[in-house]
Parts: sequence; C-alpha cells; structure tokens
Amino acid sequence: MDEITFAVLGTGGIGRRTLEVSKDKDALVPVAACDRNGIAVDHGGLDVDELLDATEGNIASGPDDGAVTDGGTAAVKQRGEDAGVAASAQAELTETPIEDIIADSDAIDAVLIALPNLEHDFIPRVGEQFAKAGYEGVLVDVLKRSRVIGMLDDRADEFEESGITFVCGAGATPGFLTGAAALAAQSFVEVEEVEIWWGVGLKSGYEDNRGTVREDIAHLDGYDIETARDLSDEEIEAIVDEHDGIIEFEDMEHADDVLLERAGICDADDVSVGGILDVRSDEKPTTTTVSVTGRTFDGERGTNTFQLDDDTSMAANVNGPALGYLKAGVRRNRAGEYGVFGPADLLPEF
Amino acid sequence: MDEITFAVLGTGGIGRRTLEVSKDKDALVPVAACDRNGIAVDHGGLDVDELLDATEGNIASGPDDGAVTDGGTAAVKQRGEDAGVAASAQAELTETPIEDIIADSDAIDAVLIALPNLEHDFIPRVGEQFAKAGYEGVLVDVLKRSRVIGMLDDRADEFEESGITFVCGAGATPGFLTGAAALAAQSFVEVEEVEIWWGVGLKSGYEDNRGTVREDIAHLDGYDIETARDLSDEEIEAIVDEHDGIIEFEDMEHADDVLLERAGICDADDVSVGGILDVRSDEKPTTTTVSVTGRTFDGERGTNTFQLDDDTSMAANVNGPALGYLKAGVRRNRAGEYGVFGPADLLPEF
Repeated sequence: MDEITFAVLGTGGIGRRTLEVSKDKDALVPVAACDRNGIAVDHGGLDVDELLDATEGNIASGPDDGAVTDGGTAAVKQRGEDAGVAASAQAELTETPIEDIIADSDAIDAVLIALPNLEHDFIPRVGEQFAKAGYEGVLVDVLKRSRVIGMLDDRADEFEESGITFVCGAGATPGFLTGAAALAAQSFVEVEEVEIWWGVGLKSGYEDNRGTVREDIAHLDGYDIETARDLSDEEIEAIVDEHDGIIEFEDMEHADDVLLERAGICDADDVSVGGILDVRSDEKPTTTTVSVTGRTFDGERGTNTFQLDDDTSMAANVNGPALGYLKAGVRRNRAGEYGVFGPADLLPEF
Repeated sequence: MDEITFAVLGTGGIGRRTLEVSKDKDALVPVAACDRNGIAVDHGGLDVDELLDATEGNIASGPDDGAVTDGGTAAVKQRGEDAGVAASAQAELTETPIEDIIADSDAIDAVLIALPNLEHDFIPRVGEQFAKAGYEGVLVDVLKRSRVIGMLDDRADEFEESGITFVCGAGATPGFLTGAAALAAQSFVEVEEVEIWWGVGLKSGYEDNRGTVREDIAHLDGYDIETARDLSDEEIEAIVDEHDGIIEFEDMEHADDVLLERAGICDADDVSVGGILDVRSDEKPTTTTVSVTGRTFDGERGTNTFQLDDDTSMAANVNGPALGYLKAGVRRNRAGEYGVFGPADLLPEF
C-alpha cells in the first residue's frame, strides 16, 4: 500500500502512544496532531520524538477539562497556556484545531480521533463537523459505548456524501477483540454467545490513562457517564482506594455487542463484556480472553478462544489495532467505500 | 450486503459441504455447481439438498482421476457416466463445465474453486481461463501450497484487466488460521514467530476428504506433490496403516507463510505449519492453535493465541471461512478492487 498520512486529534495517552507506534510503521506518516490549544502540522512527517517530549504529562482528566464540546480536545494542559501540543517547537497556538486540520485535509488520508468520549454525542459531532466541511478521507475512533454507534449510523448519509469512511470502535474492546470474535465466529453457522473478558494492569500507565479509568468507572453500579464525568480526581482516587486498586467490571456497555450484531454475527444480547482493572500493578490481574460459542453446520457445539499474552499492555492492544483498522479504512476509502464501518466490517464476513 | 450468487467448481468434500453451509447463510445463493461431466444451474437458487443427495459419494481420489487439466474437476464419478453432478435432476451433461459457468457469469458474483490442486499450476490456470474469458467477479480457492501464490501473483495483471478479485488460500490453513495470525499480530510492532498447529480427526469424513489426505501425504518426508499424486488408493492406505492412522506433519509447505509475508506481517521463514491427522477417530488428536510471538511498541515480548474448539470439524473450519472470505471478496470486487488478495489482505492491516 502507498504511504498513508494521518492526523491525531488529542494528545492524551492514546494519541501520544499512537504516534509512537506509528514510528514502527513505515507506511504511516503522522503529519498533524492537535489538542484544544495547539496544532502541529508537517506534511513531510512530524518529528514524533520532539512532539512526545513536549506533550509528556498530558492526560485526560477531571471535570475542569470540560469534555470539550467545541471541537477541541480533552488533553489537559499541564504546564500553563503553552503546554500540550503548543509546547512543541513544531506547533502553533490555535483556537480552531479541527478546522485547521480540515483546512489541510487534502494532504491527510486519515484522522484518528483520540479523545475521551465523555459526552455520548461528542465523537459523532466531531465526525459531523468533518462532514460539514466536506472532508474526504478516513475517521477512526476508539470509542467504547454501545449507544454511540447508532448516533454514527444516523450520520452515515452525511459521511457518505462527504466521502468519509468512518471506522468506529477501533481500539481494544471494542476493536481488536470485536475483530477476534468476528473471526472466531467463522467456524459456526450460528453464534450463541460471545464473552469478552479483559485484564488491564495500569500502574505505570495510570497517569496517562486517567480518562480511560474514568470511563471505566462510569460502568460501575451506581455510576453512569454523567456522574463519572463530574467526579473530581480525588473522588476517582477514593473509588480506586475503596477497591484496593483492583476493580472488577461486569456487563459493561461496550460496543462490541452492537458492532457484532450490526455485522450479522449474533444478537447484541448474546455478547457480554467484563474485566478486571488493576491500577496498582503492571501485571494483568486476569488474561484477556475472547470466547465465541456457536453451532457448526454439522451439528456440533464448540467454543473458540483468542487470548492476549499478559505481557501485552493495554496501550499495545489499543494502538496497534487502531492503526491497523485505520489502514484498512484508508484502503476502503480509496476504493470509494464511504459510510460507517465497524471492526467486523473489515474482516471476512459472517 | 445484497444477495451474493455463487458457483462451486467441484463437488467433492469441500464443494458439497460449502453448498451445505450456504443454506445457513441468507445472503448467499448457490446458483451453479459443476464437476467434470455435469453442470447444474438455477439462477433462482439450486436445490442444495437434491444436489447433495445426488452427488453423495463423490470424492477426489487416485491417479485415474487425472488431476484434471482441461478445466474439469477432480470429482470422481462413483456410479457410472451419469454420476457426480450429472446425477442431479437439476443438471445437464457437459464437456465444458468452466466455459458453461463463464457463459452464465453475468449472474454469478463469485466462484469457489473447490478442486484439489494436484498440479501446482492447476488453480492458477483455472483462474487464467476465467480471465481470458473476461469474467468479472470473485474467484476463491482453498489451495495449500506456498509456491502457488506466486503463480497467482504472476497473473495479477490479467485478473485486474478482466475485473477479477482472486481470493487465494481461503480455507482453514491457509485461510482461517492465517487470518487469526494476522489479527493476533496487531498487538505487536514486530512479529518474530508464527506457529500454526492443527489437529484433524477425520474418521467419518475420511471418504469425503481423500484428496485432502493425499495432499497431506505429499508433505511427509520422502514424498512430494508428484509422488503423492501417483499413489494408488491402496498405497495411501498402506501409508496410513504404517502410522496406525495417526500422521504427524512438521514444516508443511502451507501458504500461510507467503501470505503473511505478502501482507507485511513477518518473514515467510518465521512461519511454521504442522499438525496431526487422525483418520481413525473423529476426535481431534491435538488442539488447533495459532501462536503469534512478537515485540510490542513498549518493549515487551508476548505470545497471543487463537484456539479452535476440538469439536469444530475440519469441514466447519474450511467452509465457513471460505464463504466468509468469499463475501469479503465480493465486497472488494463491487468496490472495483481487483487482483490477488490473501486472507490477511481482508483484515485490519499490519
């Protein structure tokens, strides 16, 4: 495949690590990165190391962070007004980062939206903004919530009209593990149950991933996305302490369910997502496993499984797939296929 | 996706079971099936049950079978001249089955080539025949040998000119397990080793899959594809007896290696394929497992694994994926993407 130029919206944990992973991918050239206040563009390829050094310490955090509704990003400025992307020698201050990216979009094949989705319609609205501006290319997000997929589907016509291939839910779960479930389903003519069970050890990555932890807490009993958004950092710490740093989640609203149903693989109801997060150790508290149970054409019943090595970090399992799906999306886009694609739409079909 | 009409070349084990699996796939309409002597066409959809009953007993077998070079198939006539497809009430006798399929090709979205590849260039030449006739659509094969992929690539221009999307190596291994390896690689920035290890219990499926067993024997020390082709059924039985019905294979020439290299995932040399075949039991003698070892962007090393339930048969793991890849191929074809695609080209990219 020819070279792919891409931009990253948001330079929190996911955005920064994606830039880092792209250094290992010859075909991928990061040409732009932005957060709420700054944008760095270099069509010859950003100096990733310089940018990462300059943005070290960026995290998606508390309510003051605003869950940005104006097209900015949720990266927190750690060191005053010029922090974040703006701290990079390659960057300029801006109040209109997304518009700036769009203005350069002829030279940008794909945009990774690496923003925490603290309002349900935030990422759909970012997509809409690109469509309204007539962006032609790929948008990729790593959103989690099931209900967001429908909001994207509602905008499919706008994306198609603009020439956007929107790849949604392209992180670990949904994303990597949704794809694994879709592939594991290929033994069967009927899928009865998909169980996605993840383990994350996040000690050294905790600072980088507070936005993710906040989103996870929203899945706990007694919390939802609104109440979790309003928690202060201290309140989050208190919840973590309450659980001795190890929080178990059951029946999470992760979009694997609707993404698998959308691809015709099984009913959303037959998909369950849960896992264990340990913020005090880098060791995974449990092995990430996808189990797909189904019926074969010859009348047998079985469970195929996909397991990630405990030594692969959450970051590795989000950013590798996000870029893998991005590349697949670019291929689709170049062939003229527009609209909304889930991970399972980029695999052999059921 | 809209309805997909497809044809099957060859009504041995794979061809017949694919027709059977397609009954569970609403979007897939089998409209044609042929073997060396007969062709059945019904654009409204074949009566699969009738056809399967009529062709029961077809197998790809010994040297007399001719490894067909004239565009026919290697399905053996079990019951005289009118056996095979011709025995179906839906069929007609023909001496030019492939030409007949091509003549109807406007109404055929995809063709599954379910023929044993007992000569290296057999499937490439079948593809060539379609290209020469100007077929526009998808060709899918379930070939095994690494060296055949290059022969297909050599013909890529012809396929592109004709409008053919050729999906090669789309069975179990290569195919299903190649795809699993490609997906499992997404945690890593560098893949060091891919180990594909399969178990097949083939007691009740033995008669149906003698062509497959013959191809497997060609991988044993002291045999190659030519010597295996020339073995009589009795000689095959003797080899099976010598191994007490359980034959272990190491370092098989399966195209998973070149297909993964072609997709940029690892060197062909880093891929090994082996397994155990038990023709005297339906229980798998070992669990089919794909292990992908690599290095993550953050400096860890790990092994992701994909395992098939022992209760999923070889047939289920060939035919489901073959149809899954076929559907993905049709999508690519309809978007105007022609040429040669491996399984890993139909997944998130590395």
